[in-house]
Amino acid sequence: MSNYLITGTSKGLGLCLVKELLKRPASSVGLIFATTRSAPTPALQKAIDESSGRVVNIIVDPTDLESLRAALPVVEKRLGDAGLDVLINNVGTGPFANGIKNMYASVLSGGKKKTVLTQEYTDYDHLPNRDNLADVFNVNVMSVQNVTTAFLPLLEKGERKKVVNMSTTVSSFAYQDVFVRLPAPAYKITKAALNMLTLQWGMEYRDKGFTIFGVSPGWCKTDMGGEGANLEPEQGAEAAMKVIDAAGKEEVGRMVNIRLEGFEDGPGDRYQGGVVPW
Amino acid sequence: MSNYLITGTSKGLGLCLVKELLKRPASSVGLIFATTRSAPTPALQKAIDESSGRVVNIIVDPTDLESLRAALPVVEKRLGDAGLDVLINNVGTGPFANGIKNMYASVLSGGKKKTVLTQEYTDYDHLPNRDNLADVFNVNVMSVQNVTTAFLPLLEKGERKKVVNMSTTVSSFAYQDVFVRLPAPAYKITKAALNMLTLQWGMEYRDKGFTIFGVSPGWCKTDMGGEGANLEPEQGAEAAMKVIDAAGKEEVGRMVNIRLEGFEDGPGDRYQGGVVPW
Repeated sequence: MSNYLITGTSKGLGLCLVKELLKRPASSVGLIFATTRSAPTPALQKAIDESSGRVVNIIVDPTDLESLRAALPVVEKRLGDAGLDVLINNVGTGPFANGIKNMYASVLSGGKKKTVLTQEYTDYDHLPNRDNLADVFNVNVMSVQNVTTAFLPLLEKGERKKVVNMSTTVSSFAYQDVFVRLPAPAYKITKAALNMLTLQWGMEYRDKGFTIFGVSPGWCKTDMGGEGANLEPEQGAEAAMKVIDAAGKEEVGRMVNIRLEGFEDGPGDRYQGGVVPW
Repeated sequence: MSNYLITGTSKGLGLCLVKELLKRPASSVGLIFATTRSAPTPALQKAIDESSGRVVNIIVDPTDLESLRAALPVVEKRLGDAGLDVLINNVGTGPFANGIKNMYASVLSGGKKKTVLTQEYTDYDHLPNRDNLADVFNVNVMSVQNVTTAFLPLLEKGERKKVVNMSTTVSSFAYQDVFVRLPAPAYKITKAALNMLTLQWGMEYRDKGFTIFGVSPGWCKTDMGGEGANLEPEQGAEAAMKVIDAAGKEEVGRMVNIRLEGFEDGPGDRYQGGVVPW
């Protein structure tokens, strides 16, 4: 039986990860600490209400180490003698530069539905998000640094010692020829930083029994991914949990892709599973 | 004749880059705008005094866009009708975690002097620098973002349109098996972010005639590199300027290594020239 802590569970992928875990029997999944920055959304509250006490909401600012340290004894008390087994650093933000909302569309190509870029990147101001780069770094990188640091004592008590940092193939250097047109530079820059943070932690804690790695959960129809995305967030969450279950020493420090049949030909050769090249 | 702007010129590599350029005739190198956060150090002042007016000190905080925008008309006025040809984003910081000062030593190996790691990484607290990650990001990434943004109008007027972001092989994902023991996680994480920023800018401005790329200037005996480093900063500056001179379309968005005879076998196969793998 494993206990989980997931950040950013108000909506989107984080909420779906909570619900995905709730599908499993209590003999497999124990407590699920679901962090939010403010009071639970109705959707999360519903999951809490239907969880027979398995989902525990923790209100905390994941970018604020002091706030996290204040939450630690609350989590510790609920766990009793047990530890945390899996930490999923899910909270993140991926704003487009200068207010661009959506530049994708689904089209038919060779009889198959395919997602393509519809807007030339010359249509937006090319500069990496000037006003938000520091803020996006705070959410996408500092939160992972701080949450992992704060809950490390409870993870050391856990049996599985897995730390999962949600990343994205969009932050792969090797894929930039494909993703050059995605006008979300701050997202790419900060997730590349996150990937190096994951690698540092992964290597440093490997010999202590930890498996710290990244997962790319796919392009999901969330507030971040937009309507043009090719996956329902439930699909992304289910596929991501499969990666999380399976990951072992080979995946330490790496970013692992989800695997989904029928989605092999998206940008960056998405959803074929395996380790994403840097 | 090219005009340069270099950040972080009080000491170390930045100062040596200024002095390296001053070796060239005025027919090749025109004005050198040397930015510092406060009044010039005696070493920089000496270079200014001996430059026949070619070195112009600009006091500015490179992390502060407003400060940079205030400096723009000063630079513009000195340039007259000319533009900036080369911007070298040199300012940076690379603190070790938790106060470790130096973990290297030079030893004789096979009759040759060789630099080795002398301290196991178990001697330091493994966590990526908790207290300084955000600060290091501000210096290593936001300064490049802000300086490049602020001086872009003058670079567009320049003929060479080169923007050089000083990076390091230490931030290469591919080299982390070698650099795992270097206890400077915030340095690696933020320089990885810088590399993605460089790639974003590089690709976006390639078709506008810009050559935006990164350079790894080697491990130099500066305040940052420490006494155990294997290069004098003058060597690093000279080698870096050769890379800057030679870089063209092929190097856009990449990190280019310096080339120095006799230094082929350092960590990460340093100083062999060429593009550093991500």
